[in-house]
Amino acid sequence: MTVIRVNRDRLWRNLMQLKEIGGYDDAATGLRGVRRLALTDEDAEARRLVVSWMTEAGLTVRVDRIGNVYGERPGEDPTLACVLMGSHIDTVATGGAFDGALGVLGGIEVARSMNEAGIRTRRPVEVGFFTEEEGVRFGTDMLGSAVAAGRLTLGHAHGLTDAGGATVRDELARIGFDGPAPEARPAPHAYIECHIEQGPILASAGVDIGIVTGVQAISWQRLTLAGEAAHAGTTPITARHDAGLAAAEVVVEVRRMCDCGDFGQLRGTVGSLALAPGQTNVIPAAAVLTVDLRNPDDGLMTAAEKHLAEFAAGLAERHGVAATWQRMAKTAAVTFDEGVQAVIAETADALGLGYVRAMSGAGHDAQEIAAIGPAAMIFVAGENGGISHTPREYSNPTACGNGTDVLANAVLRLAGQA
Amino acid sequence: MTVIRVNRDRLWRNLMQLKEIGGYDDAATGLRGVRRLALTDEDAEARRLVVSWMTEAGLTVRVDRIGNVYGERPGEDPTLACVLMGSHIDTVATGGAFDGALGVLGGIEVARSMNEAGIRTRRPVEVGFFTEEEGVRFGTDMLGSAVAAGRLTLGHAHGLTDAGGATVRDELARIGFDGPAPEARPAPHAYIECHIEQGPILASAGVDIGIVTGVQAISWQRLTLAGEAAHAGTTPITARHDAGLAAAEVVVEVRRMCDCGDFGQLRGTVGSLALAPGQTNVIPAAAVLTVDLRNPDDGLMTAAEKHLAEFAAGLAERHGVAATWQRMAKTAAVTFDEGVQAVIAETADALGLGYVRAMSGAGHDAQEIAAIGPAAMIFVAGENGGISHTPREYSNPTACGNGTDVLANAVLRLAGQA
Repeated sequence: MTVIRVNRDRLWRNLMQLKEIGGYDDAATGLRGVRRLALTDEDAEARRLVVSWMTEAGLTVRVDRIGNVYGERPGEDPTLACVLMGSHIDTVATGGAFDGALGVLGGIEVARSMNEAGIRTRRPVEVGFFTEEEGVRFGTDMLGSAVAAGRLTLGHAHGLTDAGGATVRDELARIGFDGPAPEARPAPHAYIECHIEQGPILASAGVDIGIVTGVQAISWQRLTLAGEAAHAGTTPITARHDAGLAAAEVVVEVRRMCDCGDFGQLRGTVGSLALAPGQTNVIPAAAVLTVDLRNPDDGLMTAAEKHLAEFAAGLAERHGVAATWQRMAKTAAVTFDEGVQAVIAETADALGLGYVRAMSGAGHDAQEIAAIGPAAMIFVAGENGGISHTPREYSNPTACGNGTDVLANAVLRLAGQA
Repeated sequence: MTVIRVNRDRLWRNLMQLKEIGGYDDAATGLRGVRRLALTDEDAEARRLVVSWMTEAGLTVRVDRIGNVYGERPGEDPTLACVLMGSHIDTVATGGAFDGALGVLGGIEVARSMNEAGIRTRRPVEVGFFTEEEGVRFGTDMLGSAVAAGRLTLGHAHGLTDAGGATVRDELARIGFDGPAPEARPAPHAYIECHIEQGPILASAGVDIGIVTGVQAISWQRLTLAGEAAHAGTTPITARHDAGLAAAEVVVEVRRMCDCGDFGQLRGTVGSLALAPGQTNVIPAAAVLTVDLRNPDDGLMTAAEKHLAEFAAGLAERHGVAATWQRMAKTAAVTFDEGVQAVIAETADALGLGYVRAMSGAGHDAQEIAAIGPAAMIFVAGENGGISHTPREYSNPTACGNGTDVLANAVLRLAGQA
């Protein structure tokens, strides 16, 4: 069988060029970061650049009604379902160059490399990028892929608003990515997403490649705590209804739940917390915080949510502070397809690249596409402990190249050389 | 001795009229609140109204270089030091009608009542209001009285800036209250400040009047915690440097310190807390919070600050989060003059009004003026548990009238009827 070697320099140049769209000088790290939130002007500029690369690679581009973009390379038998590669190009507010972009630009590089090697496949090969994977702007992550896979309706997604009240529908139209293609995409023969690990497991094992066995369950909730403002100097400790103290107890409890073992491999994070009125000498009347929970076990995730709800309800008795929960997002744990995982493993073996199998700690578009077709992921190691969602995120050119080589040859096996 | 009865209806009308300057409809309570931060346009309008009332009451008005305003009623012997009444007319961002305003408008009402009763005094009688008592806008509370009493220099006070970078000096000039009078005021023979209690002690005792024995020490600090941003889903719990968790542990520890008894009657409040970058799925890189500590005992206050500093330093070892403290304000505990307290007590007895003695939980201008002359305070009971710094703050007309009657007759005793 033909072995594809992608052009690593070209891939790296693309990654570095895309990084400058939304690029900013990060004061905290002294590094160049990326801020390219979904459907902003920066995202639009990045989309146009990536579409131009797709077109130059000979791909037929289509945009669907939620703004997902697919580039298709025809196969010999147009009646067969395609092999799909993909990921996303939006970032968090303090992001890096690799999260999402690697899988999209890597997919385009696979198509170019096939062209240059004169390779024809039985099945069509597609590469796509999905809208608002990060969920930072409109509050729901994996938004585009969830609509593509039918978990969320187009109407629901269109109606989501950002902090300023702008809707997904209007922002898609504003940037010109409200495409005509049906949002419910045809089921692929297989889906492979190549993505940075965003964790330390691969580096610890001394390998560049991970084969992802699944994605842990994710729960995002917003907790509003209502207490009562009062004077910090005159109000006795026992007479307080301190919403800030109640919020702090929730934060500490979330960490205790992660440490205690009762909830398995639970990871919990309070990333956002705001107090009102927010004055030095006024006891906080209200606190709004987010709780991000992850768990590879759905049952233990449910138990963790139940425990936290009871803990928050107890704040009423202890502090006279009322708790209200709002669901932001919830996804179940996903197990990736054994067959696709096996093809990736065979490919890595054939290329002489070591790998480990690992569960994903982060959510990915692959978990949505897994609902409509066999899916799996390739992880690429990152430096600095695999740190991500910060400008310190970094995967070196060799790791990116190795991951994309595995992607290319696994796709070739799945699509069948003609 | 003549007994003065102030005009309660007129006092109440003045309180209600002043309340509308900076008045707003408070969404949280459904009540009309007051937002009249120091040296804003609202404060300027309120100052002009109060000055007009002083002038109408026949008082000679002078404005000093930090914007403190005094209205003087001459005494028979101009060589004698005056008896001074006073408080402030600035408010917090979510304030009520009584905090500060009662003592100022009450003092003007005392002068009017003396005029109407044809009372002449041996000593001059003055009523004043001091700039930026709340400390909300420029970060230092009791600013004007601290300058008047010589604790802070005019240059330091002038250079303080608000969140937008505006200086006290420029804002004084802008609103036309950069007066010519020396900021270091002549020592009064005695100072009495009539102020709402802002606590539940008087109501619990079933009295309208409190005689304040002193003011607890106040410490305001800003704590900055520096951790590291990372992905909420992929970063193992043990690899985190979560500045938000560290901040929450500080909040919980502050409360524990208040409950444990090791620090006497410590009151601690974290009223302001901000996380960065503040995203659901990003571990907080930084947290900035304020810590407001109050203690009637200076030694126990020092012990509390030391303990908290050690606790925060320990966050580096536990979480890899670095703590930096910034001093915002610190005042020592103040004991009010026994002689002035005794005159207030005799006056209340003579008027047949019950009272209790109480330490003040809040800071007041009286604690600054106490450095240059004998000072004490009259507390007036509030409803709703004495709640303050919210639109729910309310002292009824009878309580306000009783407190101002005590003020009037105590001032008459101290100034000596001619």
